[in-house]
Amino acid sequence: DIDMLMEPLHAADIADFLEQIEPHERRDLLEIWKGGLDGEILSEIEDNVREEILGYLTPQELTEAVRELESDDVVDLVEYLDEDQQEAVLELLGPMDRVAVEKALAYPEESAGRLMQVETVRAPQHWTVGEMIDFLRAHPDELPDQFYHVILVDPRMKPVGNVTLGRLMSSRRDVKLFDIKEEMFTTIPAEQDEGEVAYAFNQYHLISAPVVDEDGRLVGVITIDDAMIVLAEENAEDLLRLAGVGENTVNDRVVTTTRQRFPWLAVNLVTAILASLVISLFEDVIAGLVALAVLMPIVASMGGNAGTQSLTVAVRAIATKDLTGSNVLRVIRREVLVGLINGLIFAVVMGIIGILWFGEPLLGVVIAAAMVINLVIAGLAGTVIPVVLEKLGIDPALASGAFVTTVTDVVGFFAFLGLAAVVLL
Amino acid sequence: DIDMLMEPLHAADIADFLEQIEPHERRDLLEIWKGGLDGEILSEIEDNVREEILGYLTPQELTEAVRELESDDVVDLVEYLDEDQQEAVLELLGPMDRVAVEKALAYPEESAGRLMQVETVRAPQHWTVGEMIDFLRAHPDELPDQFYHVILVDPRMKPVGNVTLGRLMSSRRDVKLFDIKEEMFTTIPAEQDEGEVAYAFNQYHLISAPVVDEDGRLVGVITIDDAMIVLAEENAEDLLRLAGVGENTVNDRVVTTTRQRFPWLAVNLVTAILASLVISLFEDVIAGLVALAVLMPIVASMGGNAGTQSLTVAVRAIATKDLTGSNVLRVIRREVLVGLINGLIFAVVMGIIGILWFGEPLLGVVIAAAMVINLVIAGLAGTVIPVVLEKLGIDPALASGAFVTTVTDVVGFFAFLGLAAVVLL
Ligand SMILES: [Mg+2]
Ligand SMILES: [Mg+2]
Ligand SMILES: [Mg+2]
Ligand SMILES: [Mg+2]
Ligand SMILES: [Mg+2]
Ligand SMILES: [Mg+2]
Ligand SMILES: [Mg+2]
Ligand SMILES: [Mg+2]
Ligand SMILES: [Mg+2]
Ligand SMILES: [Mg+2]
Ligand SMILES: [Mg+2]
Ligand SMILES: [Mg+2]
Ligand SMILES: [Mg+2]
Repeated sequence: DIDMLMEPLHAADIADFLEQIEPHERRDLLEIWKGGLDGEILSEIEDNVREEILGYLTPQELTEAVRELESDDVVDLVEYLDEDQQEAVLELLGPMDRVAVEKALAYPEESAGRLMQVETVRAPQHWTVGEMIDFLRAHPDELPDQFYHVILVDPRMKPVGNVTLGRLMSSRRDVKLFDIKEEMFTTIPAEQDEGEVAYAFNQYHLISAPVVDEDGRLVGVITIDDAMIVLAEENAEDLLRLAGVGENTVNDRVVTTTRQRFPWLAVNLVTAILASLVISLFEDVIAGLVALAVLMPIVASMGGNAGTQSLTVAVRAIATKDLTGSNVLRVIRREVLVGLINGLIFAVVMGIIGILWFGEPLLGVVIAAAMVINLVIAGLAGTVIPVVLEKLGIDPALASGAFVTTVTDVVGFFAFLGLAAVVLL
Repeated sequence: DIDMLMEPLHAADIADFLEQIEPHERRDLLEIWKGGLDGEILSEIEDNVREEILGYLTPQELTEAVRELESDDVVDLVEYLDEDQQEAVLELLGPMDRVAVEKALAYPEESAGRLMQVETVRAPQHWTVGEMIDFLRAHPDELPDQFYHVILVDPRMKPVGNVTLGRLMSSRRDVKLFDIKEEMFTTIPAEQDEGEVAYAFNQYHLISAPVVDEDGRLVGVITIDDAMIVLAEENAEDLLRLAGVGENTVNDRVVTTTRQRFPWLAVNLVTAILASLVISLFEDVIAGLVALAVLMPIVASMGGNAGTQSLTVAVRAIATKDLTGSNVLRVIRREVLVGLINGLIFAVVMGIIGILWFGEPLLGVVIAAAMVINLVIAGLAGTVIPVVLEKLGIDPALASGAFVTTVTDVVGFFAFLGLAAVVLL
C-alpha cells in the first residue's frame, strides 16, 4: 500500500513528488494518506503547494505534525499562514514552543530572527570541559537535533565565543572552555536580512553562528544547512529576476504563472514601442532602401546580447560583493574596452557581409560603424545601469535587463538608421 | 604598516581585496608583503588571480603556505597548476600529505574525490562512546580542524553509519556507537560529479558525508561548507551561461573577457542573420508598407522575452530536479497556455495601438495574430528546447538561449510579415 511506497523515501523526495503531481491528484492522495504527512515533509514542500496542502489539515492535525520540529522549522511553516490559521496552530503548541515561535515571528520577514532556531547549546564562559560534558549527559532530551558549537556567554547572556564539539571532545576535563574557543567568532544581529546571513556563512565558512538582539544578548542560533537553503534561494531569485520572472516555479498554476510573467512583458512592450518610435523617425530612409529594414535588427540584437553579458556579470558581482567602489571604475573601463574590441571584430565581419549581400559598400560601412557604437554603449550601459540601480536601493537583478536592452535597441536603431540617412541618401 | 592593516581582516576579505586591485598593484603589494600570504588566503582567491599570484611564489614558499591546510584545500590550490609547478609542490610536502593529495588528484576534475578531505574521524562499529572519547582525547593533534560526525566502519572499511558529535557527547560511556547512529545515512561515490554532491547536501540537509571508492570503502569525507561553495558556483555558472558568458568575473583582464564573450556573440550574429534572411523574403511587402518595418521588432522582442522567461524557469527546474519525466508534459501544456493567455492580452493591446498609430485596422489584426502565435511558440520552445538539450547531454543553461530566441525571431518576423503579405497586399 501507499505507506510502503513512501516509507523508504526521504522527506525531501516525498515533498518533490507531491509538488510534481496535479492538484486533484494531491487531494485524492492526501485523502487516504493524510496521516503520513509529518512536519519534516511539510517543511520541505515549496510555498505555493504547501499552502494548498495546509488547507486540507485541521489545526490539530497540523500541530500534531509540527510538534517534533525545531522552532525555526515551525516558523518557516506558519509564517505565511493567514492570521486565524496561525493563531489556531500557536494555541495548540505547548507554552514553551509557542513563546519560542512567537519570539521569532516578531522579527521582520526574511530576517535572521526568522531563520534562527531558539534552541541553543550555551555555557557560562568559566565552565570547564568536564562541567560541559556532564551537563550535556544530564540533559540529552533538551538538546537540539543538530548542533555544532557550544556558545560561551557572559553573565549578561552576551555570546563571547564558540567551542567546536570536536575540540570539546578531544580536550581534557579540566581545560577551561574559554581557552579552547575558536579564533574567529561572528554574531548575527536578529534584524539582519537573511541574504546577508547567507553571504556571511558562505564568505567566512561558518557552520553555526549565534544570533543576538539589539542589546547583544543571545536569542538563537543559525546553522549552515538553513543558510545554504537561503543562499540557493537568493541565487535562484537573481536568475529568475534577470529573466523577468518573479517567484515562478514549474509547479505553479496557469493563472499564477500568467500573472507573474505579465508585468515584465508589459514593460518589454513599452520599451519595444520606444524602439519602434525611433525606427518610425526614419520611415522615409527605409522606404528609400528596404535593405535597411532587413539589416537593422542585427545591430540591435548584437547590442542586446553584449549588454546582457555585461549586466549579468555585473549583477552577479554586486551580489557577491566583488563589484565595489574600489574597482567599479576599472570594471566600467574594461567593459567598454571589451565592447570596443568585439565591436570592431563584428563590425569587420558584418561590414563584409553587408557589402556582399547588398552590393553596396557604404551600407557595409554604416552597419560596421553602428555595430561598434552599439557594442561600446552595451558595455557601458550593462555595467553602469546595475551599479546605479543598486545605489538607488533597487534590486539590479530585477530592473537592469529592461533598461539595458532599451538602451541598446534605441542606440542600435538610431545609430544604424541615422548614419544611413546621412551617408546613403 | 601593512601587516597591521591586514591583520584584523578575515582571509576571505583579504582575498577579495587582492582580487579587486590591478595586477601591477598586486605585484607591488606582494613584493613587500609576500610573507603575509598564508594557505588560507590563497585558498580564497579566485582561480585567475590566484594563478597570477602563485607565479610570484617559489615552490618552497607555496609549500610553506599550504602546510597547515586540510588535504581538500591543498588539492584545490594545486589541481590546476601546470605539471612542473604541481610536481615541485608535491615533492616538498611531507610523505603523508603527498600521498593524500595525489590520491585525490587521481579522481576526475570536479568530482567528489577532488572535493573530499582524506582526513576522517572513524571508528569500528563495535566501539562504545567511552572508547571513542578516550581515542579522541589521546590523538587531539591528528583530528581535522572541523568534523561533525564519527564515521562507523565495518572491518573492511566500509562506512555503515554516522554518529553526530552532539549525540556522542550526550550519551553515557557504555553506550554502543552503533546504537546511536543517525537514522539517515548517505555515502558519496568518489567519482560522482561535484554538482550532484552539492545537490544531495542541499536536498537532504547533509552536514558531512563519507566518500567511498568503487569497492564501497571509505576514502574521505565531504563537509557542507565545501558543498555550499560548489552549490553557489553551479548556480553562478547557470546564471552566466544563460547570459552567454563563460566563467567571466569582473576581475578578468580585457583580453580574457573579450575572448570569453566572443563565441556567443558570434552565435548570436548567425541567428540574427537568419532572422534577417526571413525579413528579406518580404522586402517587397515592406517596400509597399513601411509601417511593417516599424512594428516588426515588437513581435520578435515580445516573443524573445516570453521565451526567455519560460526557458529560465525550465533551466532552473532541471537543475533542481523539479522538472522530470513525471511532470514535463504538464509543464509544457501549462507554458503553452500561459503563452496563449498573455499572447491574447498583448494582442488586444498591440492591435489597438497598431490601429491608432497607423490608422489601418488590418494592420492591427495582423500584429495581434502574430503576437498570439509568437507567444505560444515562445512558451513551447522555451520549455521543449532545454528539456531536449538536457536529454542530449548538452547543458541547457549553455545553449537554450540561442535556440529559443532564434525560434522566436524567425517565427515572429515570419508570422507578422507573412500575414501582412496575405492580408494587406
Ligand atoms: Mg523540494
Ligand atoms: Mg530548516
Ligand atoms: Mg523563510
Ligand atoms: Mg531575500
Ligand atoms: Mg534548522
Ligand atoms: Mg537579491
Ligand atoms: Mg567575494
Ligand atoms: Mg572571494
Ligand atoms: Mg574544485
Ligand atoms: Mg560543475
Ligand atoms: Mg574543507
Ligand atoms: Mg550546471
Ligand atoms: Mg527539489
